[in-house]
Amino acid sequence: MNPTIDLLNNHRSIRLFKKDAVTQETINTLISCGQAAATSSFIQACTVIQVEDSSKREKLAEYAGNQKYVQTAPVFLVFCADMKRHELACDMHNEEMLSGFTEQFITATVDCALFAQNVAIAAESLDLGIVYIGGIRNKIADVSKLLDLPELVYPVFGMCIGYPDQTPEVKPRLPLPVVLKKDSYSNVQDSELLADYDKVIRDYYNSRSGGNKDMSWSEQIAGMLRKEARPHMLDFLKSRGYLLK
Amino acid sequence: MNPTIDLLNNHRSIRLFKKDAVTQETINTLISCGQAAATSSFIQACTVIQVEDSSKREKLAEYAGNQKYVQTAPVFLVFCADMKRHELACDMHNEEMLSGFTEQFITATVDCALFAQNVAIAAESLDLGIVYIGGIRNKIADVSKLLDLPELVYPVFGMCIGYPDQTPEVKPRLPLPVVLKKDSYSNVQDSELLADYDKVIRDYYNSRSGGNKDMSWSEQIAGMLRKEARPHMLDFLKSRGYLLK
Repeated sequence: MNPTIDLLNNHRSIRLFKKDAVTQETINTLISCGQAAATSSFIQACTVIQVEDSSKREKLAEYAGNQKYVQTAPVFLVFCADMKRHELACDMHNEEMLSGFTEQFITATVDCALFAQNVAIAAESLDLGIVYIGGIRNKIADVSKLLDLPELVYPVFGMCIGYPDQTPEVKPRLPLPVVLKKDSYSNVQDSELLADYDKVIRDYYNSRSGGNKDMSWSEQIAGMLRKEARPHMLDFLKSRGYLLK
Repeated sequence: MNPTIDLLNNHRSIRLFKKDAVTQETINTLISCGQAAATSSFIQACTVIQVEDSSKREKLAEYAGNQKYVQTAPVFLVFCADMKRHELACDMHNEEMLSGFTEQFITATVDCALFAQNVAIAAESLDLGIVYIGGIRNKIADVSKLLDLPELVYPVFGMCIGYPDQTPEVKPRLPLPVVLKKDSYSNVQDSELLADYDKVIRDYYNSRSGGNKDMSWSEQIAGMLRKEARPHMLDFLKSRGYLLK
C-alpha cells in the first residue's frame, strides 16, 4: 500500500540483537518522534529513562523475569507515566493539584503507550528492532527504587532496541471481524472465528523456525488467565499516588 | 531522516474534515495495521467499534462534550479494552478466568493505545487526518450502553478520521531533557526548562492562525489539574469488572 503501512504490518518483536551500537543522536530522534504523538489535553505525561549503567541493566533483566536481552540490548528504555512534572507546574502557579484520580492514571498510561509506539515505529523505520518489556512490572517497586522514581511516576513498560540478529515470523493476528464491529458490540460469531484462528496459531507455533510449541491461541490465553496477574499492582500504584479514587 | 520519521514528526490533530468518504477497504487496512502492533503476552485486547449510525454519532458527539466533529467526521472509531473474548477463550477450555486485576487493566489499556497509534500513523500515511477523543469518557456509562458493551469491555477513547480540511501548526513539545533521563529520575533542572518552554507555548498560542489564547504550558496544566478529573471513572470501571484488586 505504502512503505509506512508495510512497515507497520511487518512488526515482530526482536529479542536478539547485533552488537552494533545505536548512537545517542539516533536515540534522541526516536524520543522526539515519541513526543510527537498525540497527548491527552497536552499533558505530555511520558518520561523515558535510558538505562546505560550495566549493574542497573543486570538487575532490570532479573526483575523482568531473567530476560537476558534486557541486559544485553544496545538500548534499554523505561517508559514512565509521569504526573510529577504536573505537580511542579501547579506549584509554579500556587495551585494545588488534585491527584489520585483513575482518569489521570488512564491518560498518563495512554500517553506513554502512544509515545512508545511512535518510538517503536521510528526505530523500525531505521532498520532497528524492538521488544516491549512488560516484565518490569513483575518487580515494579524494585524497578522504581532502582531508577529513583518519585511518587506520581510509575514504570509502565521497558523497551529493548538494537539492530536485529534474528528474523522471527510475523505472528498472525485475530480475524478482522473479531476486532472490528459496527455500531454495537456483538460477539455471537466470535466462538466460531476463534476456533478457526486457533488452528492458524497452532500451525504457526508448529511450523515456525525452531518451534516446538503445540498450542492454540485460546489455550494459551486460558492457561495464562487462570492464574493471578501481578496481584501487587494495585497496592503499589496506590502507594505512588495513582488509582486512589 | 526518512519519510516515516517525517510523518511521525508532522502529526497534528485534525478536527475539520472534507466530506470525501473513506472506503471500508481503507478502514480495514487501518485496523489491520492496528492489529500488527505489539500486544502484551499476545492477549490482543483491543476491539474497535466503527460507528456509522447517525443517531449514535449524534449522541456520542454530545457525550464527548459537544464535539461536533465526532458527529460529522467521515469515520468515527471507538477503541475498547476488551477482556470479554478472553473469558470466551477460558470457557472453551473449561478454565475459570481470574479477572479484576489492575495488571489486566494496564495490559488491555496499553494494548488499545498501541493498536490505535498504529491506526493513526497508517491513516496519516494515507493523507488522512485524525483526532483522539478522550471526551467519550465524560459519559463512559452512557457510551458503553449506547454501543452495547458487555462487562470486561470499556471504551478507552474514540478517534475521528477523514481527509483534513485544515492545516493546524505542529504544537511544540517539552524540551528533550525533561522527558529523557539517564539511569535515574531527576527533575532538578526541570523548573528552569519548563519556564523556557512556557514562553515557547505562549508564543505558539499567540501566533498560531486564528489564535487568541495567551497561556503557557504550566498555566494550562495548573488550570486543569486543580479540578477533579472525571471522578466517576473508578466506580464505573469496577462495575465492569476492572480494577477490583
